[in-house]
Formats: sequence, C-alpha cells, structure tokens
Amino acid sequence: MKKQIKTSTHLAPVAAVLVSCGDMDVSDIVTIAWCGTVNSEPPMLSISVRRSRYSYELIKKYGEFAVNLVEREQLEVLDGCGVVSGRSVDKFKKFGLTKQACGNIKAPAIAECPVSLECAVRHTVEMGTHVMFVAEIVGATAREDWTDGDKLRIPDGKLLAYVQNRYVETGKTVGTYGFTAQK
Amino acid sequence: MKKQIKTSTHLAPVAAVLVSCGDMDVSDIVTIAWCGTVNSEPPMLSISVRRSRYSYELIKKYGEFAVNLVEREQLEVLDGCGVVSGRSVDKFKKFGLTKQACGNIKAPAIAECPVSLECAVRHTVEMGTHVMFVAEIVGATAREDWTDGDKLRIPDGKLLAYVQNRYVETGKTVGTYGFTAQK
Repeated sequence: MKKQIKTSTHLAPVAAVLVSCGDMDVSDIVTIAWCGTVNSEPPMLSISVRRSRYSYELIKKYGEFAVNLVEREQLEVLDGCGVVSGRSVDKFKKFGLTKQACGNIKAPAIAECPVSLECAVRHTVEMGTHVMFVAEIVGATAREDWTDGDKLRIPDGKLLAYVQNRYVETGKTVGTYGFTAQK
Repeated sequence: MKKQIKTSTHLAPVAAVLVSCGDMDVSDIVTIAWCGTVNSEPPMLSISVRRSRYSYELIKKYGEFAVNLVEREQLEVLDGCGVVSGRSVDKFKKFGLTKQACGNIKAPAIAECPVSLECAVRHTVEMGTHVMFVAEIVGATAREDWTDGDKLRIPDGKLLAYVQNRYVETGKTVGTYGFTAQK
C-alpha cells in the first residue's frame, strides 16, 4: 500500500546535460535536468529554462542551442555550470572548456563533451517558473569511442543520471527494448 | 575531436515509466520513455505518445493520466507494457497489476509501482510521430520505504534508466546539486 506524499518534480531518473547557446563570440552554458526526448521522427527534445537565466535570453534570441551529454568524469563541471551565472562569468573560460563550431546552428557545442546535439527551436511553452523550448535535433557529433560507424553507441556506465537533487551513476544493461516479445 | 553522426533521439539517460490512463473501468497502461520534468512550480512533466496508441485516445478523452515509476524488479512488466496493445489486451490483468484509485484524477494508478504521480493535462503539442501532453502533477503517492515523512526519498540503485534502446541500472549517488559551490 502507498501513502500520499507532497507533490514535487518527482519523475526520475532524468538526464543532466550542459546546454550551450549564443554564438561563437557571445555564449553561455547552463546545466539542465528538465529535459527529455519528445518526438521520434523528426528527432526532437525539450529543455526547460528559468526566465531569469542568461541562457534563456540567448536561446530566445537565437532560437538555437546545443545539448551536450556529460560523462562521469565531468561531474564537477556539470554541477559548476548550474550554480554560476553566465552574466558575470564566461563559463567556457572558467571551466576550461573549448567552443566547438557546429555545422547546423550558430551556437557553439562543448568540445570536451562526448556527444553534442544541435537543436533548432520549433515550439515554446510558457509555464510557471520555466519556459520549455521544444526543438528539433538538426545535427549531431560524437567522440569516436562513443560511435559505431555513423551511429551513436553510448558505452555502459559512462553517463550520469539525476534523481531528485542527486547525481547518480548508471550501470550495466539489463535488457533491450522488446526483449519480452522475443521470449 | 568529434565526428558527425546520424541524428536520432540521442538524449540519454531518460526515464522509462508506466503510464496508466482511462478510469477504474476502462483503462490502459503504456510504457513511455519520452517523458521529462518540465516545470518546478507548479510541478509539471511531459509525456509523448504515438497517435496510434490506445492510451493516446484515453489520455486525450480524459485529460488525465498517472505516471508510475518502476523499480528494477519490474523490468519484465515495464518492457511488456510497451510491446502489447491495450486494444486487444487488458494489461492490468495480463501483467497481474492492481488498479489503485487516485484522489485527484479518474485514472487508476498501478498499486505495485513504488511511486505514482497523478497528472492533469495543461498543454498539448502536436509533432511528427508523437503528441506531447504537458501536465501538472496534482497528487502523488509512494510506498512507505520510498518516503521520509510526506516527502519522496528514492533509494539508490532501485530505478532503471533508458539509454538508446536499452534498460540500464542506476547506482550510487556521486554528488548532490550545488556541491561545487560549497567547496
């Protein structure tokens, strides 16, 4: 039996990613956990950003951003980009990150992240504290060891997940979609 | 250096949850990985559902659904509810699940899942293959061992995550949001 609990943002696990935005000159990075895949064809995702964030202004202005997946070793940068404001600090410089020019958007990706998804905003949804940008993935790059030919192949155990207010490890694969139908 | 790869639904990890819908008589369950938190106050989440799904019809009709978090032991049910159609099968019966009446929505939650989030649709976004339902979490229940008073406390290692087409384990906590600011 279950009991009633206080409502909150209880869905878990979610990703925690670094979103880079602006252009190759004026840019910012923000840590986002309120994100998710929202459509298969074309591939689309959403990110939700607080209106007070400097990144919000840049994404609204450009209509583009890059979602950079983060690996376990980047935990300090992942957290750090979420607690410092881009209004006062150049986060690329502060965290020793390199701007990677994107083929399909003006925003820089983060060279040190293993995967970068180039996103173009298609819809905007206004909510209480956040604005959701629903975007199409118009380009993607990945590090050689995270690929199999021109396909992404994420290695087991490299990603972090976000559960409530905690960063947690991910581990080994325990099943593949549809495995119960093949029995 | 990174190379170009084919675009796809590359964001990871994401949650894989069981969404229950309809009412206490006519109901369905569908496995959803295209979901995410989208707003903090009020707490809101989104799920994206293919238009061909029986659950899509029920969610559209009622404007409500429950998101049920799944624990590791429920892997077979999690996968099974994603590969069987509710048009031909009563998934509560087929998978031995119990309808839990919700205090705030007509849809049944799944008693066997450790956490259930009662959701009321506030926005709908039409996309290529999927429709996104953006919903407010208007109620929540959890099993005693996943709570601390009236708050949710998700134990380490109990949740599964979804990475590309694979179910993967989650593990121990490696940091708490803001830990780099406290150094």
